[in-house]
Amino acid sequence: MKSLFPTYDVIVVGAGHAGSEAAGAAAAMGAQTLLITMNLDAIAKMSCNPAIGGVAKGQLVREIDALGGLTGLVADQSAVQFRMLNTSKGPAMWSPRCQSDRALYSSMMRKELEKKDNLHFRQDNVVDVLTTEDGKHVSGVRTSTGQTFEAQTVILTTGTFGNGLMHIGETNFGGGRSGERASIGISAALEELGFEVGRLKTGTPPRLDGRSIDYEQLDIQYGDEDPSPFSFMTDNLPTRQEQLTCWIGFTNKRVHEMLRSGFDRSPMFNGTIESTGPRYCPSIEDKINRFSDKDSHQLFLEPEGWDTYEMYLNGFSTSLPEDVQYKALQTIPGFEEAVMLRPGYAIEYDYFPPYQIRRSMETKITEGLFFAGQINGTTGYEEAACQGLMAGINAARKVKGEDEFILKRSEAYIGVLIDDLITKGTEEPYRMFTSRAEHRILLRQDNADLRLTELGYKIGLVSEQRHERFQTKKEAIDQLHDLIADYTVYPDKMDPMLEEQETSTLSQPVKAKTLIPRPQLSIYNLLDADPELKRRAHEISSDPDVFDQVEIQIKYAGYIEKEFEMVEEMRKQEDTIIPDTLDYRKISSLSAEGTQKMERIQPETLGQASRISGVSPSDISVLMVYLKN
Amino acid sequence: MKSLFPTYDVIVVGAGHAGSEAAGAAAAMGAQTLLITMNLDAIAKMSCNPAIGGVAKGQLVREIDALGGLTGLVADQSAVQFRMLNTSKGPAMWSPRCQSDRALYSSMMRKELEKKDNLHFRQDNVVDVLTTEDGKHVSGVRTSTGQTFEAQTVILTTGTFGNGLMHIGETNFGGGRSGERASIGISAALEELGFEVGRLKTGTPPRLDGRSIDYEQLDIQYGDEDPSPFSFMTDNLPTRQEQLTCWIGFTNKRVHEMLRSGFDRSPMFNGTIESTGPRYCPSIEDKINRFSDKDSHQLFLEPEGWDTYEMYLNGFSTSLPEDVQYKALQTIPGFEEAVMLRPGYAIEYDYFPPYQIRRSMETKITEGLFFAGQINGTTGYEEAACQGLMAGINAARKVKGEDEFILKRSEAYIGVLIDDLITKGTEEPYRMFTSRAEHRILLRQDNADLRLTELGYKIGLVSEQRHERFQTKKEAIDQLHDLIADYTVYPDKMDPMLEEQETSTLSQPVKAKTLIPRPQLSIYNLLDADPELKRRAHEISSDPDVFDQVEIQIKYAGYIEKEFEMVEEMRKQEDTIIPDTLDYRKISSLSAEGTQKMERIQPETLGQASRISGVSPSDISVLMVYLKN
Repeated sequence: MKSLFPTYDVIVVGAGHAGSEAAGAAAAMGAQTLLITMNLDAIAKMSCNPAIGGVAKGQLVREIDALGGLTGLVADQSAVQFRMLNTSKGPAMWSPRCQSDRALYSSMMRKELEKKDNLHFRQDNVVDVLTTEDGKHVSGVRTSTGQTFEAQTVILTTGTFGNGLMHIGETNFGGGRSGERASIGISAALEELGFEVGRLKTGTPPRLDGRSIDYEQLDIQYGDEDPSPFSFMTDNLPTRQEQLTCWIGFTNKRVHEMLRSGFDRSPMFNGTIESTGPRYCPSIEDKINRFSDKDSHQLFLEPEGWDTYEMYLNGFSTSLPEDVQYKALQTIPGFEEAVMLRPGYAIEYDYFPPYQIRRSMETKITEGLFFAGQINGTTGYEEAACQGLMAGINAARKVKGEDEFILKRSEAYIGVLIDDLITKGTEEPYRMFTSRAEHRILLRQDNADLRLTELGYKIGLVSEQRHERFQTKKEAIDQLHDLIADYTVYPDKMDPMLEEQETSTLSQPVKAKTLIPRPQLSIYNLLDADPELKRRAHEISSDPDVFDQVEIQIKYAGYIEKEFEMVEEMRKQEDTIIPDTLDYRKISSLSAEGTQKMERIQPETLGQASRISGVSPSDISVLMVYLKN
Repeated sequence: MKSLFPTYDVIVVGAGHAGSEAAGAAAAMGAQTLLITMNLDAIAKMSCNPAIGGVAKGQLVREIDALGGLTGLVADQSAVQFRMLNTSKGPAMWSPRCQSDRALYSSMMRKELEKKDNLHFRQDNVVDVLTTEDGKHVSGVRTSTGQTFEAQTVILTTGTFGNGLMHIGETNFGGGRSGERASIGISAALEELGFEVGRLKTGTPPRLDGRSIDYEQLDIQYGDEDPSPFSFMTDNLPTRQEQLTCWIGFTNKRVHEMLRSGFDRSPMFNGTIESTGPRYCPSIEDKINRFSDKDSHQLFLEPEGWDTYEMYLNGFSTSLPEDVQYKALQTIPGFEEAVMLRPGYAIEYDYFPPYQIRRSMETKITEGLFFAGQINGTTGYEEAACQGLMAGINAARKVKGEDEFILKRSEAYIGVLIDDLITKGTEEPYRMFTSRAEHRILLRQDNADLRLTELGYKIGLVSEQRHERFQTKKEAIDQLHDLIADYTVYPDKMDPMLEEQETSTLSQPVKAKTLIPRPQLSIYNLLDADPELKRRAHEISSDPDVFDQVEIQIKYAGYIEKEFEMVEEMRKQEDTIIPDTLDYRKISSLSAEGTQKMERIQPETLGQASRISGVSPSDISVLMVYLKN
């Protein structure tokens, strides 16, 4: 049947964290975009914890924001608490995180999406992916109401909804998440097109009635005094006093015994669930099983919003039978009278092992078809959102006949994530960590805009307003950097301050920049000690981000330069493209394993090939010589 | 399996408009209450039009509010536009109505419910109703997660979710409303208990993208300059300038032709849907079919909220195939480029013909089991909400061993609604109208608090704060009424005003109250004409509601007194209770039809018996004599 509707440039299926960014980016870049979701009232719903950011995840959000994405903006507008994690470590480890008002996050994201002129919404359930007659190019989707929607590109972001099956103890039932039905049909359509499908598992803890908790027995956790936003466009945030607090509790031996008593009825242990869950976000039963010597685990009790007493018990994810959940919960100090609003559950869902996509998020099998989010085997809102953003960008660019937009591992955590996925694949839900980024000294949350905003502007995603604001900041950083680098400070002004900071005094005038690397000193110490320097600095800028940035650039200049040299060394490999058409079997001196792995993964660059497990350094040398000829 | 959870006084199943009021009332009256809903993020969701109130429905909301219910408060807090309908008619016809922000309404209702100390929430899907061993008394419910919850009373408010089946053209699929799944299991459990189940149908129009409408071709509809709240507790409302506007459009012959072209594929006309829909809220295909001589129907384009461009096309409810919906829509002037976010659909669902419940909303078959809302065959949020309120009140009272709380037909539209339902039954969705109330002159929106707040206070639902505010107002009304009744006005002060208002002048001093019934005059004319009267009146009160009320009481005193006399006449019948145990077959002189009907309906009073169709006046006389002996 001919479609009733106009042909779109981009159709996005699913409006979670991946789908929202994908649709927002594609529309902002001028593509006529249709966002299809089973429930328009549940856009960007936080299915699991009411929080954005965290270690490495916060960096992802800052990068999404720097490129012109929405997650950071919406997180700032809907947060109930802000905390910068890891501030006791170096700036490369600093990671912003916020607690969110779950309902507000959803409605603010919808509001942001409604601002996009080229974006249409449709509430419907996609059951089939349509292709051109030769089966090689996507042509649209069909929904359960029998309608077809045509498009040049389709982005699938099915999350946990693809053949979703929920488990609580020995009970299981179809569902996409608590209270919502699963989506059936898409996986079969993709298998027919030749895609390999797999199953993954994730889970979520019970939600509690905050009135039933004895807070006296818990530790309180405040937000930051001077909170730092995710978005470079956010100016005002609530103070610590205006923010909500979180709470910390602990399991103990008795709780663990109670949990263990349900293991024979646990779908995780009795064989019902065979698929793999997220290693670094394990269920409580997994934790006490794997770390059986640990007598206590930390739990975070997090508010779900400004106006609700519903609370999220972070760290207590479980699919044990509800009677076990309930009794174990009530054994935790402070939770003796706890009332559950929703029990914890596990959910199994379909994913498509990500060797099947390119760096642009486009699938290798079906041209114009993109995957983003949990469908690629990741876990986490931030991991999903950044994939959605990249898929949205690349779908829009493909429609316009433009090159793929790729971020390198040395440019962004987003680049690391996508390269990891497509190169190494994943057999368990993939989560971002700082340790996954070899150049993490360069990939800091504080410089995401310096790394990415110019790129986002070039591709048409960063608005003029943001770009102007960015340029103003960047110029101030450069000027302040030059000032500090050139400015000479004298012992008479510096020595009293240096003595106070318990670091050695000066024997002669020195450049200001030579003092900043001392661990005892900050840029502010120097400014306070030298009024003339302070005056000139404040002529340049009064933005504390500018001062912090210059301090980091100068303090860690040695590390940063070294890192850049390493990136430079590896660039040759990263920039060497391996053509799609390369027949590895024709290169006689490649190892058998290397050949096999590269045939499966089809690396797009020599750098990517070098990271495939089973591909040896000599394989890379052979390949490099071959490609030169 | 023994329940894990405490035994509740009241369990409410479903958190729509009926369930929310039921849970709120039961908890406020001190009952330990559990509200179970399939989706805690969709409490009091407006499945159909984003509006509260309207003719007769607005009166219901005022009554709910006067008794201490929540609908009026929440409507005031979430409205985007207010309009008092029928102000050109007498005060008995005045009907408040508002447009609502759909998402805000839902979140504000949840916020109100979260304030109730005795109320617990549970996200789950009830699949079975449990009874005591003898099967005669409800004992709790079982959910799809396998849990049982025990309670002394259970209130079922399943809405359109009970075996819900959605239709769009020739496509149909299970669902409780757009985007949400149906609830399966409860109906079968009730049938097993001996309940008769039926099917009803309702429908909803497509939702549109407000950006795609050409407003130049539509008429604008503003809110009231000086809006009037639903709740006696609301002090501040947005001005007309702060409110949103609605729009009016019209179908034409071409639109009707386009719609007709799909009739062969319409589930309404091809036999797929056999159940009956709401007569007074018909689908557009029904309208053009039943009123084939009409070339045009009015449509109202209503905003769905402050922050969204989604619009509701009131008057265009349809289950025609989507291609027909789409083409017909685009034939309407102003809608040539209209984009649909969600198509219109029809939904069939289970209801239980309401002869099976008592005036208290308790079922006759199973003690402690209550029904409220669409499950009783009604349509409309307001009709559902007031039933929920009454069921919540009566469940809480039952638990405390207190009498049933019943509102008479002469006391409230709520009384009319329930009496109609249980006496006449309904084979099509029942909607409230002013014409259904024989004493509608008494049942005005302006005096709902005077009629009901004292009752609500006595049963413990009206708060002290509201009661004090009510008493202050009531005393002021009485004092002002006495002042106007006693006060003598003189020709010298009155005649200039009377001439200006074009009504005859005075030949001698008269009591102020004798002037007010003149159609040309309001109480304010008299006050303005006599500074001393004004001064004394304003010493009593400055609340315009007080002045309006006294004016109505005096202006319509004749009608009101007459109405009270009629109520008095009928009271004898209304107050004569028919015992449950009465065996009609033993009363030899009853008509056969009367006997049959009364056996089925089991009227609780002689008044109720007199309204049963098929029961003759002579049957009533016979019964009256019999009951006296």
